[in-house]
Amino acid sequence: MNKPMNKRKICVVITARPSYSRIKTALTAIKNHPELELQLVVAASALLDRYGNAVNYMIQDGFVIAAKVFNVLEGENLTAAAKTTGIGILELSTVFDNLSPDIVLTVADRFETMATAISASYMNIPLAHVQGGEVTGNIDEKVRHAITKLSDYHFVASKSAYDRVIKLGEDPEAVFNTGCPSIDLAANVNTNSAFNFEPYSKYGGVGSRPDLDKGYWVVMQHPVTTEIKASRMQIEQTLKAVHELNQPILCFWPNVDAGADGTSTGIRAFREMNSLHNFHFFKNMEPDDFLRLLINSKGLIGNSSVGIRECAFLGVPVVNIGSRQNSRDRGHNVIDVSYDSNEILAAIKKHDAKGTTETSNIYGGGSAGETIADLLASVALKFHKTITY
Amino acid sequence: MNKPMNKRKICVVITARPSYSRIKTALTAIKNHPELELQLVVAASALLDRYGNAVNYMIQDGFVIAAKVFNVLEGENLTAAAKTTGIGILELSTVFDNLSPDIVLTVADRFETMATAISASYMNIPLAHVQGGEVTGNIDEKVRHAITKLSDYHFVASKSAYDRVIKLGEDPEAVFNTGCPSIDLAANVNTNSAFNFEPYSKYGGVGSRPDLDKGYWVVMQHPVTTEIKASRMQIEQTLKAVHELNQPILCFWPNVDAGADGTSTGIRAFREMNSLHNFHFFKNMEPDDFLRLLINSKGLIGNSSVGIRECAFLGVPVVNIGSRQNSRDRGHNVIDVSYDSNEILAAIKKHDAKGTTETSNIYGGGSAGETIADLLASVALKFHKTITY
Amino acid sequence: MNKPMNKRKICVVITARPSYSRIKTALTAIKNHPELELQLVVAASALLDRYGNAVNYMIQDGFVIAAKVFNVLEGENLTAAAKTTGIGILELSTVFDNLSPDIVLTVADRFETMATAISASYMNIPLAHVQGGEVTGNIDEKVRHAITKLSDYHFVASKSAYDRVIKLGEDPEAVFNTGCPSIDLAANVNTNSAFNFEPYSKYGGVGSRPDLDKGYWVVMQHPVTTEIKASRMQIEQTLKAVHELNQPILCFWPNVDAGADGTSTGIRAFREMNSLHNFHFFKNMEPDDFLRLLINSKGLIGNSSVGIRECAFLGVPVVNIGSRQNSRDRGHNVIDVSYDSNEILAAIKKHDAKGTTETSNIYGGGSAGETIADLLASVALKFHKTITY
Amino acid sequence: MNKPMNKRKICVVITARPSYSRIKTALTAIKNHPELELQLVVAASALLDRYGNAVNYMIQDGFVIAAKVFNVLEGENLTAAAKTTGIGILELSTVFDNLSPDIVLTVADRFETMATAISASYMNIPLAHVQGGEVTGNIDEKVRHAITKLSDYHFVASKSAYDRVIKLGEDPEAVFNTGCPSIDLAANVNTNSAFNFEPYSKYGGVGSRPDLDKGYWVVMQHPVTTEIKASRMQIEQTLKAVHELNQPILCFWPNVDAGADGTSTGIRAFREMNSLHNFHFFKNMEPDDFLRLLINSKGLIGNSSVGIRECAFLGVPVVNIGSRQNSRDRGHNVIDVSYDSNEILAAIKKHDAKGTTETSNIYGGGSAGETIADLLASVALKFHKTITY
Repeated sequence: MNKPMNKRKICVVITARPSYSRIKTALTAIKNHPELELQLVVAASALLDRYGNAVNYMIQDGFVIAAKVFNVLEGENLTAAAKTTGIGILELSTVFDNLSPDIVLTVADRFETMATAISASYMNIPLAHVQGGEVTGNIDEKVRHAITKLSDYHFVASKSAYDRVIKLGEDPEAVFNTGCPSIDLAANVNTNSAFNFEPYSKYGGVGSRPDLDKGYWVVMQHPVTTEIKASRMQIEQTLKAVHELNQPILCFWPNVDAGADGTSTGIRAFREMNSLHNFHFFKNMEPDDFLRLLINSKGLIGNSSVGIRECAFLGVPVVNIGSRQNSRDRGHNVIDVSYDSNEILAAIKKHDAKGTTETSNIYGGGSAGETIADLLASVALKFHKTITY
Repeated sequence: MNKPMNKRKICVVITARPSYSRIKTALTAIKNHPELELQLVVAASALLDRYGNAVNYMIQDGFVIAAKVFNVLEGENLTAAAKTTGIGILELSTVFDNLSPDIVLTVADRFETMATAISASYMNIPLAHVQGGEVTGNIDEKVRHAITKLSDYHFVASKSAYDRVIKLGEDPEAVFNTGCPSIDLAANVNTNSAFNFEPYSKYGGVGSRPDLDKGYWVVMQHPVTTEIKASRMQIEQTLKAVHELNQPILCFWPNVDAGADGTSTGIRAFREMNSLHNFHFFKNMEPDDFLRLLINSKGLIGNSSVGIRECAFLGVPVVNIGSRQNSRDRGHNVIDVSYDSNEILAAIKKHDAKGTTETSNIYGGGSAGETIADLLASVALKFHKTITY
Repeated sequence: MNKPMNKRKICVVITARPSYSRIKTALTAIKNHPELELQLVVAASALLDRYGNAVNYMIQDGFVIAAKVFNVLEGENLTAAAKTTGIGILELSTVFDNLSPDIVLTVADRFETMATAISASYMNIPLAHVQGGEVTGNIDEKVRHAITKLSDYHFVASKSAYDRVIKLGEDPEAVFNTGCPSIDLAANVNTNSAFNFEPYSKYGGVGSRPDLDKGYWVVMQHPVTTEIKASRMQIEQTLKAVHELNQPILCFWPNVDAGADGTSTGIRAFREMNSLHNFHFFKNMEPDDFLRLLINSKGLIGNSSVGIRECAFLGVPVVNIGSRQNSRDRGHNVIDVSYDSNEILAAIKKHDAKGTTETSNIYGGGSAGETIADLLASVALKFHKTITY
Repeated sequence: MNKPMNKRKICVVITARPSYSRIKTALTAIKNHPELELQLVVAASALLDRYGNAVNYMIQDGFVIAAKVFNVLEGENLTAAAKTTGIGILELSTVFDNLSPDIVLTVADRFETMATAISASYMNIPLAHVQGGEVTGNIDEKVRHAITKLSDYHFVASKSAYDRVIKLGEDPEAVFNTGCPSIDLAANVNTNSAFNFEPYSKYGGVGSRPDLDKGYWVVMQHPVTTEIKASRMQIEQTLKAVHELNQPILCFWPNVDAGADGTSTGIRAFREMNSLHNFHFFKNMEPDDFLRLLINSKGLIGNSSVGIRECAFLGVPVVNIGSRQNSRDRGHNVIDVSYDSNEILAAIKKHDAKGTTETSNIYGGGSAGETIADLLASVALKFHKTITY
């Protein structure tokens, strides 16, 4: 007989579009797990039009939203990042009080995920963290490891992340190398990678509409929290390089991180100053479509974690620019360069000459979501821990 | 020539009475340092009457208050702890924005100190942490180590704390074993430990007024965050033991932590149920007076960190009850017992028979405040770090 | 056939114990109305132990709580009142966003009810206000009339209140003199007014336990927001008068308003300074029991609105002290005095000599709750209005 | 002898660019008044780049900023308006606590000005309100009159506003028809109205650069809070009309009000769908420059209050569209039309044929700022009031 009352309630808080695509297969696996009940909370930029309104995709994908939390304070400066987190704590604590989850799950290391971690841990709700133990070197670095210290379970994405979480004094019995659920999505898409949509008509955007059949590059570059004053210069170097390249370019607008104003202004100014006959600019794209766009591209240019993670599994060539992905494990597909248009252009040309790259399973092989759901159903519930040394 | 414009601005946020007494000698040393300017921010329970109104002592001690932040949400439950932290972030980020400190300093591991740590680190202000690296085992454990991961400088109180912060992946060049500034205070008081005040008339309180010349014990027991439902039972075991002891008892009301309602109710009920002819109950006491009270007592009973720390230096006998001070380094003065009136009574009698205990410098020797001020004046300013492994 | 989907959703926000008893019959009528669905939100001091935990009574009374909102900031000062309101807006807007009510109903004029009014009106949700149009003269005065200007429907308690709301420029079609629902409760109790409980054993409290059969007076005095520094003096005058009276006194602790610390301190100090052989102090009492206590008493002394409102209907003698109820309509039962022990004592003796007073229907005759529910089911939904002049 | 300690501290909170230009002459008069000290607090959209960063103009104009408060929650929906106000209260109460002003002054009726009014009135700080008593008919209507009921002094802009505030039950001794300080600014500019700047080079913007010497119209249209779903349709009717007009058009982007997304999207879509050879789009403009632009234009089209107020004084022809300025006093310069491109076009042509309009002093004659400063220096300080009926 069905006993729904005994299902563990798993509350997942999604605060941004990329976090949703990263965790989506885990959400599906939790939703479908006979012993789990999914409580999906959507917050921060995942609710906002100008950051892609991820909540709409969740609803399209068949998820029920348990609560919405608007907490993004305007400013795109560092004060706003702190305040957004403070408001998030105020609101999420009420949400958790009402939903009474058995476990709260938080994803990765965006600044506002700290609100989830603090609310849950302060309320003695067992806290699970996906993608701890990685190294990057910006404010995410502080946030990620602090969340590890607040978390009771760790679902890490690679062996080096596993080792690092153990070194941070976490009980090895609470650390699990599940691989990254974003790889699950990439694996699904990879089995059927043909374009099944027309990017321009489906996603609009501005700029010319270069012919994609002749090969194209994708540009996605976000501001770096610790280098916000340089964000405009950084995007300009990239745009200069791809302009000189003179091949079709599909360029995406940046995330909502501190410094995004600089990146956006840089893009706008570059558009006004130059005649860009083979550039198109997208605001955002559904994750599956974005992966198909990458698989069919000549490569990705910028500093998105997709280049490090999904593209390793898919074997998509990547020119990774600057410090944002510092110290993350690399597959065989990445050439690292600094914020210098000449270096960037040279790396693109090197990839272009070689054509393709080997694939790698360093971030998992495609079943992370189900592994996470199974663990959430089976781990002992606890919210009390002591450092191991 | 005096060049005040070049002084480093050191913003210290004090959120509770015990934190103030713990850090006081560092505040004085910062205030008096020729290259530093002190910005003292007072927040949370340090502003509230029913938690001893620490702000008044600061003003009496000659400190200027740069900003006051009221952020304690009522409830004394775990939701309120989260919300208090959220409001703290909202407010402190504005305060930091206005004060523009060069370094923010946060003290120890109370839940609301996380607000200081998040606001400063998210705003790219170098963050110094006093008393990281210790082990206790309650929610403070999570908070303390998470703050370590958000902090840029670590002023730890003992060798074992030093080792632990290094193991947490912090750069050894940013970790300093300064000893605990609360020991400085104890050292000062110890050189002139005679009673120079009359506790009953100076601090009021309720209950009988036993003759202190014949020897007395001090009771200070706080709720344990992870055991809040047991807080009433826990205090009752202690009160039962000291009632049977039948010696003069000076008992303090608990901190504002989650569970304080249980402790307070336990004390009130015990008072109404029993005829307590040699008990007096104090709400709070100035730190120096409290130390004199301890030095002249037969010992301290409960779970206050003063028993572990200052009493180690002073050689005051301590019966430490339960899990709150678990894993903290012990001097020679502590007998650990569980929440059991028989065990508690036996430990008291053992101390009573022996009479006195050896002193220990494990938490420093009396100059931590000046060491901290000197470091704040000399460390390289930075807010960017990477884990060491 | 029943079509529950068409039921209007009526969201009522209760922020304090007295507001609950005031509105209780309307809540019951909404809950039982075939065309309405009640969404009961409990916030602020209605959730807190030390203000009587009204939420527990609601649950006992069979109401389902749709959401709880902890928003009382500690301090009991004026800054805290503002902040409590700010937090209330942050939280209630999320609650309203999730509950999607057709009408929000707010009660009376406590400072934090402004949070309900602002959240609803800013979110274009039709707002109904119970007990607008009255005059008192403290901060409530500003709050009450400001809420009238934010509200779309007005359920007022008396003819003079009706006239005042019209004068404030509200459309007469949106103003309804329903009488006060608190009178409904008094009417119910009055039909069966015999003591069916023993106050001391049921409600505990401290002090002696005078014999109630010989006649007794009830004292309930709250701080006045605009006179907070005088709150201790004010209660002392009252206590002095009733001490001299030398008859049994049942005294209640004050509300959580700014100044409550002064009132509480005054009570505590008076208790310690005097031997009070016929005083008992209650923290709080269920509304029905409190009404029975009043009906069987010799009269009420203090500044509670119950004295003005329910006691008018019941004919209970009242000595009303000071400015808190200034300008509210009076029945035949009130003698107004200033904060002067002699005046207070003289008024008590005058009532005592006379024995009883006439009843009055100025605040309604006992069916306000049902009238309000019927109006909520029938008024045209609107959130847009223009001043009538 | 100078006695600065006796100066009254006047705290003015500015939350938006238009409020700054409206109150600027009063700020100057307060700053220069020998008995007043100005405490200028800048909050909300006045701090944000994408709403014109009014704070920069204040600094350029020589004002010192006493505190900055970031409180705009993202979303541009109605929930965000409520939350922005809640955060504003949290923050402003701390600011007022630290600045200890003698009087707080709030401007007009934007939703977030309620935060200023609540914080000040709840903290018993005398509150002055500029521009109460007007009638418009949207959410501003509720906000404006609610703020009147929270305020202690009223500096109104016209005779009809004066009468209305009195009818609202305010003490006539606290109501002053000062005229509107925005007229002072217009009077100053009018005495030297020649173009002393080149709009395109000074303010950038996008679109073509029509020759202004041949006559041009200015378009400024904001969303209406109670009609947010229609905001895109509304701007489209206007753009259609002025497109057909086929004369040079200088068009401004909308305010940050709820619905602004619709207006902005409407403008963007119209630009993409049409070849606009004589349209230029500005983000914002300094107030003096904007007035010069109006004085030299053929007229203003849209729903800005500048059309009703400054343009009455200046005699600039205005086509006022829709309900946003409903019921505000009109000079001789306004033709009111509905959201219909034909009506709009007809009204423009009527103005174009007539050429110029009479001036009017209904909103004051040019000395409101000084009158307000003098009143702030002389009114009796009070924060307690009672309705007059």
